[in-house]
Amino acid sequence: MDVKGLAMAKDKRPGRPRAETPRGFRDYFGAEVSERKAMLDTIAAVYYRYGFDPLETSAVETVEALGKYLPDVDRPNAGVFAWADEDEGWLALRYDLTAPLARVAAQYRNDLPTPYRRYAMGPVWRNEKPGPGRFRQFYQCDADTVGTASVAADAEICAMLADALEEVGIPRGDYVVRVNNRKVLNGIIESVAELQFQQAFSDKSSETARASFLELKAALIEKTDDVMRTLDKFDKVGEQGIRDLLGPGRLDQSGAQIPGLGLPNYIIHGFLAFLNARGATNGVTLQRLREVVQFSAIGLEGVQELETIASLLDAQGYGADRIVIDPSVVRGLGYYTGPVFEAELTFEILDDKGRPRQFGSVAGGGRYDDLVKRFTGQAVPATGVSIGVDRLLAALRAKGRVQADTRGPVVVTVMDRERMADYQAMATELRRAGIRAEVYLGNPKSFGNQLKYADKRNSPVAVIQGGDEAARGVVLLKDLALGARIAAQASHEEWKSQPAQSEVPRAGLIEAVRRLLGSA
Amino acid sequence: MDVKGLAMAKDKRPGRPRAETPRGFRDYFGAEVSERKAMLDTIAAVYYRYGFDPLETSAVETVEALGKYLPDVDRPNAGVFAWADEDEGWLALRYDLTAPLARVAAQYRNDLPTPYRRYAMGPVWRNEKPGPGRFRQFYQCDADTVGTASVAADAEICAMLADALEEVGIPRGDYVVRVNNRKVLNGIIESVAELQFQQAFSDKSSETARASFLELKAALIEKTDDVMRTLDKFDKVGEQGIRDLLGPGRLDQSGAQIPGLGLPNYIIHGFLAFLNARGATNGVTLQRLREVVQFSAIGLEGVQELETIASLLDAQGYGADRIVIDPSVVRGLGYYTGPVFEAELTFEILDDKGRPRQFGSVAGGGRYDDLVKRFTGQAVPATGVSIGVDRLLAALRAKGRVQADTRGPVVVTVMDRERMADYQAMATELRRAGIRAEVYLGNPKSFGNQLKYADKRNSPVAVIQGGDEAARGVVLLKDLALGARIAAQASHEEWKSQPAQSEVPRAGLIEAVRRLLGSA
Repeated sequence: MDVKGLAMAKDKRPGRPRAETPRGFRDYFGAEVSERKAMLDTIAAVYYRYGFDPLETSAVETVEALGKYLPDVDRPNAGVFAWADEDEGWLALRYDLTAPLARVAAQYRNDLPTPYRRYAMGPVWRNEKPGPGRFRQFYQCDADTVGTASVAADAEICAMLADALEEVGIPRGDYVVRVNNRKVLNGIIESVAELQFQQAFSDKSSETARASFLELKAALIEKTDDVMRTLDKFDKVGEQGIRDLLGPGRLDQSGAQIPGLGLPNYIIHGFLAFLNARGATNGVTLQRLREVVQFSAIGLEGVQELETIASLLDAQGYGADRIVIDPSVVRGLGYYTGPVFEAELTFEILDDKGRPRQFGSVAGGGRYDDLVKRFTGQAVPATGVSIGVDRLLAALRAKGRVQADTRGPVVVTVMDRERMADYQAMATELRRAGIRAEVYLGNPKSFGNQLKYADKRNSPVAVIQGGDEAARGVVLLKDLALGARIAAQASHEEWKSQPAQSEVPRAGLIEAVRRLLGSA
Repeated sequence: MDVKGLAMAKDKRPGRPRAETPRGFRDYFGAEVSERKAMLDTIAAVYYRYGFDPLETSAVETVEALGKYLPDVDRPNAGVFAWADEDEGWLALRYDLTAPLARVAAQYRNDLPTPYRRYAMGPVWRNEKPGPGRFRQFYQCDADTVGTASVAADAEICAMLADALEEVGIPRGDYVVRVNNRKVLNGIIESVAELQFQQAFSDKSSETARASFLELKAALIEKTDDVMRTLDKFDKVGEQGIRDLLGPGRLDQSGAQIPGLGLPNYIIHGFLAFLNARGATNGVTLQRLREVVQFSAIGLEGVQELETIASLLDAQGYGADRIVIDPSVVRGLGYYTGPVFEAELTFEILDDKGRPRQFGSVAGGGRYDDLVKRFTGQAVPATGVSIGVDRLLAALRAKGRVQADTRGPVVVTVMDRERMADYQAMATELRRAGIRAEVYLGNPKSFGNQLKYADKRNSPVAVIQGGDEAARGVVLLKDLALGARIAAQASHEEWKSQPAQSEVPRAGLIEAVRRLLGSA
């Protein structure tokens, strides 16, 4: 718009506003809200039973507290919705539930119990380009334990995650909680190098060989992040893909060349031994991991922690059918420092193109020991998990396991506008009996419209009383659920006999409706 | 900060961030979250039973859709938190739940049932100066019916409000839903003028008198908003206060002169007759109102609507002990066009200074017919109510009627770090029995710290098992609730006898804990 356009806009009375959600934002209606709420309530009850307390932080934080402030740019970092406040500096909407927890743990450190177990559920906001399936506001559902370094806390969260999945409706056998440890991942690089070196060069004392090895090791450690990111793709690209990406590179599906990390073959061999370390039992896996990281103190510490987690869980009845030590779990986030975990649904669903695929990950988390330190300067060990609310709900829908009752209300129709009080009285009676009910309050002139309305409401029963029925002290009940089935299946004759309609005494209204609802 | 300071900030590594909620924002912990959730769940169940469907709109709206856009200012109107989005123009956080409903009703008008009954609960944001008790994020809890002009919809909302208050724990008799009608209020000005004129000037045909009256009436209608705002203060300033504010003005408590509206006495007399029209029964009130507005068609229509509402409610058992026609209900919002209502708690609480006062209003609403029209150009009649979540929760706390179980978990203490798996197994068993339980995961070295932790958690029972107890197959249970009572009341001897501690067989753990929790 040019300057002239701007001037015109000023003079012009603005037109009608567009009735639209901003792109990347959604509205949730009826059953969508109820189903999510039922799932979150169930998860919250599990968290609560484990001693976790609810916490609800404000949606708005200072940009400073969120840790997204860059002093050399005009506006806070992309990724958050932020604005300048008159008094408070830059404010922003939270982008996850972990950053606010770190702020709370620092702010209330003298009042909170140690350790502090809390759960939180609610929307978070991301200032990203919206796209198909990519939204700018979505729900998270987290549980964290702040203030203990004990891996018993990590084990507890894995058990709790398994319980939560089962209670929302994922049967045992349809999910697995895969556990790994960042310490193992970190230790592996030096250990793989050392191990392969020893196997490759029998003369361990060769000074030249040793020097060239140390150089290689240093170069490798520098590439840690790249290596992690590559290993994280194991599920997607498979063994040969990893071989190519760690080595010479590969062609992607479009034919483009993806550069590799250029590692020597004997090192790549070590990483693959690591990725493939998962054995038939957790014991076998742990033994293999121990071998792979044998030359790294931090790596061995990591294996030891995994061993403790597995044995604690085993003692509580969470065996390898549910909790699996799996070296291929890497997880993208940089801030993890110890155990990491991921809950995966193992049943198949059909993808957009109708092909079967594993449902995949619905939750993940791990130990992060440095988030509170940003505020206080003191390291505070913490661990937690975040459930992907939308993904888990999609899984429950795919399995037909949503918990909410999403049936519409009984609709009392209005045959005679003057007798509104009578119809309201019927609805009141039904509600007092615990039955969801409403009176049709649109224009009652067309009875067909009233039944269309009841259909749109997914109403199970319509109540009808005209003057004739009123005089005889009866009401007509229309079984709309049965009616819909008959309309779909019945012959014309069957349909005409109206089996879905019945006349009952007015005094027997509640009982008759209850019977139709199948809750008598 | 000067330019040099800015340049330095660039070079300097930023210091530690402050761990603080921005001013005007709050965090909610544990019981605060559970209690509010329990209350909202109860209210939602009532709304649902009345046929209302949940709706959850996004927190972010375009400023245009919210209706806060002023084309001649750089930034959107004060009052909302807003920011410029790269693609979407100005975005803002919703400031209530009604504006988003109007947007939804317009956006999905072809898909939603008519009428559309919906409820919504969630935070809203106001960009106002924070102050004591004034927050920039708070909860609202609304129910609205969009798309029907029938006052049966208004009546239904009044009945539903009464049900909701009773189900959350406000006993009948402790609240009243006061109902008025904007049409009566609008009609009253011309009617009062006309009535008083007729009484003041017996010669109705006097041209001069008639002309001066018409002039006065026009001036009065111009002052409608001022008059409404003044009448709204009736509860606060009383009859003499209203007399002064409508007339010559009055001195406030600080001695400052507050200007009056300068209306003639006979007009003021009419308004007071209106404010005092509330009689012993709704019938008497309606009769008096009918007299006060007898010369206004719109006023009489308003009285007729109130009559219908009262009789519909009466037929459903909501009598004048719960629903009261009360002309003194004015309500500030400009957008109401018909019935308005307000739920008031009538019991007394002590204010900040220890003086008893009536609790006052906890919910309000009314009919608004023009909000959707902004988008579509077509008038869509609507009516709704909003419950003040924080105020109602405060009332329930004052009455000791909060519904959430806020007891802490059973704490399994750690006497022997090596036996963590045993302690975890105890907690697991307790949870499987539905008992909230956790293992102490802090540093177990000091047993005193473990008990202090249990106290801080408001734990009812501590479970203790050292090596000796383990060998004998028993556990010690400490009744912390009883212990606290004893510590407060008992003599030293009684305290030493440790009645709050008992030894039970390990196999009888669940049963014994259940007994202590009083849920056996």
